[in-house]
Amino acid sequence: MASTQCLVVLFLITFTSTAFSRSILETSPKTHHSFTFNPISIRRKIPNDCDNWYCDSWRLSVETDNARSWTQIPARCLDFVEEYATCHHYSSDLEVVAKNALEFAKEVNVSIHGKDAWVFDIDETLLSNVGYFQFYGFGHVDVAALFSEWVDLAVDPALSASLVLYKELQKMGFKLILLTGRNESLRNATKKNLFEAGYSNWERLIMRRPPDMNKTVTEFKSEKRRELIYHGFTLHGNCGDQWSDLRGFAVATRSFKLPNPMYYIPL
Amino acid sequence: MASTQCLVVLFLITFTSTAFSRSILETSPKTHHSFTFNPISIRRKIPNDCDNWYCDSWRLSVETDNARSWTQIPARCLDFVEEYATCHHYSSDLEVVAKNALEFAKEVNVSIHGKDAWVFDIDETLLSNVGYFQFYGFGHVDVAALFSEWVDLAVDPALSASLVLYKELQKMGFKLILLTGRNESLRNATKKNLFEAGYSNWERLIMRRPPDMNKTVTEFKSEKRRELIYHGFTLHGNCGDQWSDLRGFAVATRSFKLPNPMYYIPL
Repeated sequence: MASTQCLVVLFLITFTSTAFSRSILETSPKTHHSFTFNPISIRRKIPNDCDNWYCDSWRLSVETDNARSWTQIPARCLDFVEEYATCHHYSSDLEVVAKNALEFAKEVNVSIHGKDAWVFDIDETLLSNVGYFQFYGFGHVDVAALFSEWVDLAVDPALSASLVLYKELQKMGFKLILLTGRNESLRNATKKNLFEAGYSNWERLIMRRPPDMNKTVTEFKSEKRRELIYHGFTLHGNCGDQWSDLRGFAVATRSFKLPNPMYYIPL
Repeated sequence: MASTQCLVVLFLITFTSTAFSRSILETSPKTHHSFTFNPISIRRKIPNDCDNWYCDSWRLSVETDNARSWTQIPARCLDFVEEYATCHHYSSDLEVVAKNALEFAKEVNVSIHGKDAWVFDIDETLLSNVGYFQFYGFGHVDVAALFSEWVDLAVDPALSASLVLYKELQKMGFKLILLTGRNESLRNATKKNLFEAGYSNWERLIMRRPPDMNKTVTEFKSEKRRELIYHGFTLHGNCGDQWSDLRGFAVATRSFKLPNPMYYIPL
C-alpha cells in the first residue's frame, strides 16, 4: 500500500532523523559507536508479494499475542514494518482502537466522585518513538541500549488518535493515570515531552522506581493497578501497545491493545 | 490485494454455492424464503482505498478483541471480508498461527502417560464454513438461523494449516480434544464431516448438551476444560477463532487465536 505520501513521510523522517542524530551526538558522545553504519541502507530491497503476505500475517500474530516472546522483526519484514509504521496503515489502526475505546467509554456512567479512571501506557501508546526506530533502523538489535538517551531528548510526537482520545476522556470526567515502564530518573524529560506533545492534567504519572527493577512489566503494572484500586479508583479502561501492559491481575474492565510490530516487551 | 487467482476462487465458490443451494432446498424446503434475494448482488461495488484502510484496521480490532461484541461486519467492509476469506490473506494468516502453535508444541516435553492434551474448536478452527457465508452473503444478518442445516450437510473443507498442525501434534503424542459449541444433535454430521475432511483419532469430541444451552460459550468451554484437567489432562495448547474459545478459567498454557472477521460469538 505504498504511495507518494509514504515516500514523502519517509523523506521527512529521514531528514528529521539526521537532525536527531546530531542532537544525540551532541548530548551523548559515548553513543557514537552506533553511528558507524546505517543498517537501513544495507537492507533496502523491493519486497515481493510473498514477503508482504507473510509479514502481514506475522504482524497479526504479534498483535494477537500468538507470536509471544518474539525478539526480532523477521529480516524479510523489516521494510514492511518500516512502511507500516511510517505510512497510513499504523495511524489507521490507531484510529480504530481509539474509536473502540471511546465507544466503550461512552457506556460508562462517570460519577461525580472523581474515581473513574483510565490507564494509559506511554511509549507507542501516547507518544511515538517511530523517529528513533527510523534512525537506528527498524529491528536493529542494539537499539534498546540507547533508548534512555532518546527519551531524554523529549522529542517524541503524540500519536494523534491517542491524543484525541485522551482529551475526550478527560472531558467526560475520567481521571487519567499514566503507567509506564520508564525509569523514575526520566520523569522530567517524560513530563516535558508529554506537555510539548499536548498532554496535560493527568491524575498520576507512575514510573519504575528501584524496588520495581527486578519485576516483570506485568508484575509491576498489575501491582500499581491494584494500588490504584485500593485507593478507590475504578479502572474502566486500559490502553497499551504491549500485552504486558494489559494482562496480570487488577485488570481494567476493558483493555485496548494498540498495535506495535516494532518491538516486544516480555510478559 | 485482489488477483486473478482470487477471481477464480470466487467463481469456484459461487459455482459450488449454487450446488449447495440445491442441496439445502432439497433437504430443507422450509428454508426457501431465504432464497428470494441474493444479498451479494445488491452490495457489489468497487471498494476505495479509504474503505480498504478502514476495513483492515477494523479486522485488526476484531482479532485483538478491541471491537468486542460486534454484531455485524460494517457495510463498507463486506467486500473486504469476502476477499479476505476467499483469497490468500486468510490462509496466510492461518499458516502463521499454525506455525506459532507448532513452535510452542515443540517446547513441550510430551510424557508417555497420554495426558498431554491440545484443545481445538471446530468451526473456523478445524473446518471452514466460508462456503456457507459465500452462499448467503457475508454479513447477512439472518444467516445463523440456517447454520444447523448447513452443518447437517457435512460438506465443510478442512482449514489446511489446521489439518497439518492437527496431524503434527498427533505424531508428537498430544491427545487432541475437540470442544465445540455445536449441539449434541449434530454429532453424527460433525463426525462425518471431520472424517471426510481428514481429521481422525481425536481423544474426545465434546459438544453442547441440553444442560449447557443457557451457558455462555466461555462458561461452557471453561467448565469442560476444568473437567478435562480434573481427569488428569494437562492442557498445553488451545486453538480457537473466537475469544470465547480461549478465555474464562482453566485456560491452556498457551492460547492461539485464529482469525475470523466473518462473525463474532459473545463471550
